[in-house]
Amino acid sequence: MNLNQLAWRRCDRLMAVADRLRITLAQTPEGTRVFDFGVEAVGGLTAGRFLAEACLATLGDVSIVPGSVGDWTGPVVTVETDHPRLACMASQYAGWQIARDKYFAMGSGPMRAVAGREPLFEKLGFRETSDRVVGILETGKLPPAEVCGQIAEQCQVTPDHVILLVARTASLAGTVQVVARSVETALHKMHELGFDLASVVSGFGAAPLPPVAADDLVGIGRTNDAILYGGQVTLWVQADDDQLAELGPKIPSNSSSDFGEPFAAIFERSGRDFYKIDPLLFSPAEVTLVNLASGRRHRFGTPRPDVLARSFAT
Amino acid sequence: MNLNQLAWRRCDRLMAVADRLRITLAQTPEGTRVFDFGVEAVGGLTAGRFLAEACLATLGDVSIVPGSVGDWTGPVVTVETDHPRLACMASQYAGWQIARDKYFAMGSGPMRAVAGREPLFEKLGFRETSDRVVGILETGKLPPAEVCGQIAEQCQVTPDHVILLVARTASLAGTVQVVARSVETALHKMHELGFDLASVVSGFGAAPLPPVAADDLVGIGRTNDAILYGGQVTLWVQADDDQLAELGPKIPSNSSSDFGEPFAAIFERSGRDFYKIDPLLFSPAEVTLVNLASGRRHRFGTPRPDVLARSFAT
Amino acid sequence: MNLNQLAWRRCDRLMAVADRLRITLAQTPEGTRVFDFGVEAVGGLTAGRFLAEACLATLGDVSIVPGSVGDWTGPVVTVETDHPRLACMASQYAGWQIARDKYFAMGSGPMRAVAGREPLFEKLGFRETSDRVVGILETGKLPPAEVCGQIAEQCQVTPDHVILLVARTASLAGTVQVVARSVETALHKMHELGFDLASVVSGFGAAPLPPVAADDLVGIGRTNDAILYGGQVTLWVQADDDQLAELGPKIPSNSSSDFGEPFAAIFERSGRDFYKIDPLLFSPAEVTLVNLASGRRHRFGTPRPDVLARSFAT
Repeated sequence: MNLNQLAWRRCDRLMAVADRLRITLAQTPEGTRVFDFGVEAVGGLTAGRFLAEACLATLGDVSIVPGSVGDWTGPVVTVETDHPRLACMASQYAGWQIARDKYFAMGSGPMRAVAGREPLFEKLGFRETSDRVVGILETGKLPPAEVCGQIAEQCQVTPDHVILLVARTASLAGTVQVVARSVETALHKMHELGFDLASVVSGFGAAPLPPVAADDLVGIGRTNDAILYGGQVTLWVQADDDQLAELGPKIPSNSSSDFGEPFAAIFERSGRDFYKIDPLLFSPAEVTLVNLASGRRHRFGTPRPDVLARSFAT
Repeated sequence: MNLNQLAWRRCDRLMAVADRLRITLAQTPEGTRVFDFGVEAVGGLTAGRFLAEACLATLGDVSIVPGSVGDWTGPVVTVETDHPRLACMASQYAGWQIARDKYFAMGSGPMRAVAGREPLFEKLGFRETSDRVVGILETGKLPPAEVCGQIAEQCQVTPDHVILLVARTASLAGTVQVVARSVETALHKMHELGFDLASVVSGFGAAPLPPVAADDLVGIGRTNDAILYGGQVTLWVQADDDQLAELGPKIPSNSSSDFGEPFAAIFERSGRDFYKIDPLLFSPAEVTLVNLASGRRHRFGTPRPDVLARSFAT
Repeated sequence: MNLNQLAWRRCDRLMAVADRLRITLAQTPEGTRVFDFGVEAVGGLTAGRFLAEACLATLGDVSIVPGSVGDWTGPVVTVETDHPRLACMASQYAGWQIARDKYFAMGSGPMRAVAGREPLFEKLGFRETSDRVVGILETGKLPPAEVCGQIAEQCQVTPDHVILLVARTASLAGTVQVVARSVETALHKMHELGFDLASVVSGFGAAPLPPVAADDLVGIGRTNDAILYGGQVTLWVQADDDQLAELGPKIPSNSSSDFGEPFAAIFERSGRDFYKIDPLLFSPAEVTLVNLASGRRHRFGTPRPDVLARSFAT
């Protein structure tokens, strides 16, 4: 299984459903295909699910179902994967900051595993070779040709072997895509806590779909809150119960001293400096670990519909 | 995107799944294919989902999931669409009354957009040309060949280029199909209130699947109640918050003076005359408007599980 | 519709998704294909859904969605079928005990309808002829070639025309597969109570996905409890309301004197002898019968999240 080949196979025939997904295609002179899922294009819920699944290298299923978190009710985004380490960490995690001149985007998707520019890949023990790559950009601006060329170069592929799917956070598809990261957020936190992700066998998560924001900063706040205060994740792991009992309480968002306020308020309090926010905050509200080695279930954290309500009302 | 071509592509291969869907095919001498989804045929839940998606011209996804509305629990029918105006209004809305001699059916599906017999289409600013059409008939009787011929004529296509899917309300597929109209009902009400539906970007709705009735009138009552007292719809719109705050309270069913009783009781009270029922009653119990222009969320109305319980117990 | 041909068509191309499903293939010298979904292979949630749908001869849809049963929350396995008698009883029911020397497996899937070794088939009035068969084995051990040969013989097919999908209960896929039996359990109980299953038109069920156990006996306990205390099933039937009112209270699990304790405790109390357990215990917690003949809905039984919590915590 090659993550980029899997994603490419699905994205290569995107034009056939462009009208249905309300996405548009722009091609750089060098042949990079840039699909607009929600920058200038309208996109939608279906575009969002497609974007999320492409971001998982198609190794996960994303749905929208009616749901509730305490007294909060509304559409909920679910994600199911049997390849959590590859789909979520090697692909979905938005760990590649694409910057060139004044352009900036959070890069995710399987192209990261080929570029391998993040220290994370060394720790994951995973890298991929591929002659074609697929990337997802979370940004308010479509990437200029030079940025596309830079991505191609850093992946060591020709520009016409790059497909990029682009959406801003404050778009329908962008919001769905970010909220589909409930399992990924739990994995990343566990990784930070020193848990070996090779022991995570499968994941299932759900998080409320927040109202799409009008600007990206508010959008980032709400999508974060959807996971921090409404995300409920089950991970099936191979581990030691003592280790899980010790590690577990540190996984969900309530383990952070920043827990309890909407992300936007925490951001303000931190002087609008992301790096002053406790990095251990970023995790689902509730994490359930099913230990396949012992058959025991551990549940940590607690959803906070009251904070969701405050966040989504801003 | 041609609505009829989209629906045709899916319906053209229906025979391959006829046994699975428990539907039957009758062909008129002139070649119109009439698929019985629930008149004499048994049909089922899968047939109902197919029927609902065909009725949306395949521009929406319909699922059945376990759900709840207050203390009511049971299967819930969800609908998701990124083409609400086309899928729900130009196609799904049952606005074409098919009548000839003693035959009567509520006509819906994309054929309406070709026939264009309803004033609605002028207001929608949408019409379609197609050499083949797909229609859905809600009726207790399969259409005779003359009715099929009349439909062909009114759509200006040859009778062998007409596919009709037919089910009574009091059938499994018919019930699923009608309850999949939660988003459509909200749109229609907003249209009646003067809201420009071109501003409705996407929709997601859910409504309880009522017990299938034994006769169509009871079925109409229960499927209406499923939406009026249990329907919960989210619409993403491009609008002005002041307009939404003013318009919003008028959208859900509780804005009507008829609200609060099962549909059957209202119908009796109105002397069994549909036209004496407040037309503004027909709307979901709860409507959430997410304004993409401002990022604000507005929620109006309230589900009434108590009325659902009374309605479904009759 | 031939159940085995339907299942074969889906399983015949399993190799193409083996990595994605994390299943492995072993072929006996005589050509029987044995897919390991969760004995030595890891399998997963997707493998579990595939296994469950193959077990239903593809005449049912299985999903995993977030859900709740009272105050229990977590992933829920749903099943939807319009062919309950064939999909659940002639195929999914684990009624064929495969035993040879020291080997033992609970056999299910469409192969049962060809072998016809169970008295059940006479009562069902259904048998199938097929030159190829698909079977599901719930067992802790992959079947040796002799067992595969015996199955082929008893189905009167050549060994290379046998596909077997195998998982232990205490595996991810095995757990999903067993919990997807909510509708089947209700049908089997109704059959035992003398209800004619030809009158059951469609079924929809949901049951909580328990924590995967580390050993099969605990797994059997939890998966049973998921259905006994958390299973909620709706069946659409053609029947007489008086008969349903009389029969109904006997269908759900609370009709049994053994009801109220986790299955493991009942098993201990019965001296670890399955045959001393009340056979009428095995049924969903809640069964809703929608009578298509009268339009009336009957609901019986009650979920017991407290017992679920105790069972899943062991």
